[in-house]
Amino acid sequence: MEVVFLGTGAGVPAKERNVSSIALQLLEERGVIWLFDCAEATQHQILYTPIKPRKIEKIFITHLHGDHLFGLPGFLGSRSFQGGETLLTIYGPKGIKTFIETTLAVSCTHLRYPLEIVEIEEEGIIFEDDQFCVVAGELQHGIQSFGYRVIEKDLPGTLLVEKLVREGVKPGPIYQQIKEGRTVRLDDGREINGLDFIGPRKKGRVVTILGDTRYCEKSIELAQDADLLIHEATFSSEEHELAYNYFHSTTTQAAEVAKQAGAKALILTHISSRYQGDDSQELLGEASKTYSPTYIAKDFMKYAIMAK
Amino acid sequence: MEVVFLGTGAGVPAKERNVSSIALQLLEERGVIWLFDCAEATQHQILYTPIKPRKIEKIFITHLHGDHLFGLPGFLGSRSFQGGETLLTIYGPKGIKTFIETTLAVSCTHLRYPLEIVEIEEEGIIFEDDQFCVVAGELQHGIQSFGYRVIEKDLPGTLLVEKLVREGVKPGPIYQQIKEGRTVRLDDGREINGLDFIGPRKKGRVVTILGDTRYCEKSIELAQDADLLIHEATFSSEEHELAYNYFHSTTTQAAEVAKQAGAKALILTHISSRYQGDDSQELLGEASKTYSPTYIAKDFMKYAIMAK
Ligand SMILES: [Zn+2]
Ligand SMILES: [Zn+2]
Repeated sequence: MEVVFLGTGAGVPAKERNVSSIALQLLEERGVIWLFDCAEATQHQILYTPIKPRKIEKIFITHLHGDHLFGLPGFLGSRSFQGGETLLTIYGPKGIKTFIETTLAVSCTHLRYPLEIVEIEEEGIIFEDDQFCVVAGELQHGIQSFGYRVIEKDLPGTLLVEKLVREGVKPGPIYQQIKEGRTVRLDDGREINGLDFIGPRKKGRVVTILGDTRYCEKSIELAQDADLLIHEATFSSEEHELAYNYFHSTTTQAAEVAKQAGAKALILTHISSRYQGDDSQELLGEASKTYSPTYIAKDFMKYAIMAK
Repeated sequence: MEVVFLGTGAGVPAKERNVSSIALQLLEERGVIWLFDCAEATQHQILYTPIKPRKIEKIFITHLHGDHLFGLPGFLGSRSFQGGETLLTIYGPKGIKTFIETTLAVSCTHLRYPLEIVEIEEEGIIFEDDQFCVVAGELQHGIQSFGYRVIEKDLPGTLLVEKLVREGVKPGPIYQQIKEGRTVRLDDGREINGLDFIGPRKKGRVVTILGDTRYCEKSIELAQDADLLIHEATFSSEEHELAYNYFHSTTTQAAEVAKQAGAKALILTHISSRYQGDDSQELLGEASKTYSPTYIAKDFMKYAIMAK
């Protein structure tokens, strides 16, 4: 499970930072990639990574501002052009359906794969299967803006093969039954409880990716004990008034959220183009006074969330 | 008057070629730039040129396929963000209005400049003032696709100052009247005809920029005696069946149009990503057998159309 930053700027693209998009690679876990936001030229950024558009299974749009959205029509068309045939599901605020349907219709873009568009009607679980659960919560950004908490479900413990061999249980189809935790009768008449031969369950990981927002309680809730929190930091610490007026956050506010939530790591993104070059180090310094470890995202930066 | 190629590829962006956009710089002539098509990441390409978005006065969209259109919403927003305050006029096929209005509304993009959208209802003159005239004609591309003939009006001849001085006419406000071709009475009682003191009118230039199209008569009409014809060449000469089926042109067909039209120069663009690196030389060779001078466009290539 790794996060790859495809765009880490705010508002307008710049040479150093493209506008917002983040890829969550779940290649080992489920052989796919999830995208969070899809600003203009996200597909161009992807050209410089090993990411294959057809591997992208879900796209979560945090909010409908252009610097998080305008790469979507081009990406959808190119995914088809490049051989994508599997279902793609897009989650986002109300309005996303009109945007996608109008842009594809006007441009006569015909997709060769099924497209499902889910407009989020209320906070809570928006996706769940036996591996993952995604919770959406509403932030404070003037327009509807969601934060997403991606929860990996706990993984079953591994089969304690050595212990089984010590007990004289030989490998065979019976191992599968034991692994499922069932009580089985052996050939020699003994009965064993599968649960005694399975290691402890492995805790799943949590990654929280927030849309643009002011400092708010919901962010803390979504980031509770997360292994990684990705939070916007459009402004430096001293610009808290600007941040408040434009419904954005400062470095220090993002760090405060990570601290309150007890997150394990914080990455700041959505950096205004007013901060160039070495300014990043200053922004990092501000946040680090409140919370550590903090990182400042750069385009193409990769961050691995280790299994526990 | 110069043409700058911002995107010269077809269908999907590639590292070598972005999707379609061409800037026609009229900085000396009227202090502005006109854009032809605005594919995704056109604003990103502009970052690597001296072009200022606020200087762009008109955008002509040839047709509504995504690889000519999807950069428009982002460009419009950024032009505002970067201080554009003057009127911007967009010309294009029916549907362009819905596309722009929907994308701006859904994304809550508020422009700080007046935006005029002209859906072209029929062929002919779509814009005219005392400097320029633009004629649109319908090509053959499966969907409505326009070619644009940009006609610079003939320029008045220069004032023959030396001749005036020889005749003893001293510089002063009277020069302006003479320049306008009026008959004026001098202080010494003589009457002179302004027309005798103006050099020959200078022929205006013609640049023809076509949207995607099959080989067709309309292209020849639009390119008649043009100083520069910019024509798509999605396919190599031998792929004429593919070109026909997909409503595109081959190198040879583009050259044939230039030849029939008596154009002064031809630039091929909209090159499929199947042609890489040295293939360009081959494409150029094909076209040059039929018409010369031919050039193959590259991203950021600049071509000056000299005054006559
Ligand atoms: Zn925003
Ligand atoms: Zn086309």
